Amino acid sequence: MASDCIFCKIIEGSIPATTVYEDDRVVAIMDIMPVNPGHVLVIPKTHFRELSEMDEEAGMHLFRVGMRIERALRRSGLRVEGTNLLQNNGRAAFQEVPHVHLHVIPRFSGDGMKVQFGQEKAAPEKLQEWAGLIKRQIEA
Amino acid sequence: MASDCIFCKIIEGSIPATTVYEDDRVVAIMDIMPVNPGHVLVIPKTHFRELSEMDEEAGMHLFRVGMRIERALRRSGLRVEGTNLLQNNGRAAFQEVPHVHLHVIPRFSGDGMKVQFGQEKAAPEKLQEWAGLIKRQIEA
Repeated sequence: MASDCIFCKIIEGSIPATTVYEDDRVVAIMDIMPVNPGHVLVIPKTHFRELSEMDEEAGMHLFRVGMRIERALRRSGLRVEGTNLLQNNGRAAFQEVPHVHLHVIPRFSGDGMKVQFGQEKAAPEKLQEWAGLIKRQIEA
Repeated sequence: MASDCIFCKIIEGSIPATTVYEDDRVVAIMDIMPVNPGHVLVIPKTHFRELSEMDEEAGMHLFRVGMRIERALRRSGLRVEGTNLLQNNGRAAFQEVPHVHLHVIPRFSGDGMKVQFGQEKAAPEKLQEWAGLIKRQIEA
């Protein structure tokens, strides 16, 4: 519990939220600034700033609940055409609240959400170089 | 295995890719059109079009490997400042290859990636309505 954290305040009940799911480890609430109708945030009850602070079991539970919300959204009657699961770590990655959260975003053709992806093919030797750096650091 | 699927072809070995991780269920490769240096895709070996086709155990393994890649990226020496985990389902959600994949994207302050998020606060009664529709569909 971080005293200045809006998600911790929601979890302890001092700020209201619209809950869609809750268990002993996570809560799922409606995003009050939704990209689209039905946009949900899945939030661990413990105050982790970023995903890498969570142990694997806790992280997997966050995504398990995200998957369940995604399935529920598709059956919800909101006429969802697609979904994004998005989890941002760090200000450089557009994380606005420094308490881990997973966005589950319903999508509709032609909605206003825009993402700018990669525009250029990388050189094969660059791909090899990056892969080498990452491989070395992967834990068994 | 879908005969016209580029990821199935990579998995069976008929199209080359730069692999960073592989086990019996998933492969992780470098994205050839990276958002940033070090952009990885985690891909299930079975041809699922969308996340909702995967059973929960298989989906969780995809995210488990995504978490491991994310940690590896942070230690890789690529001077990663943040990360996005992004999993898109359906054309309306910018899914370009119709075989499930999880983007693990390293981020740097001021890089070229842009995401347009929600711009307006939703009315409380709308949040309640959407939450009701979703809640009803969440499986235990």
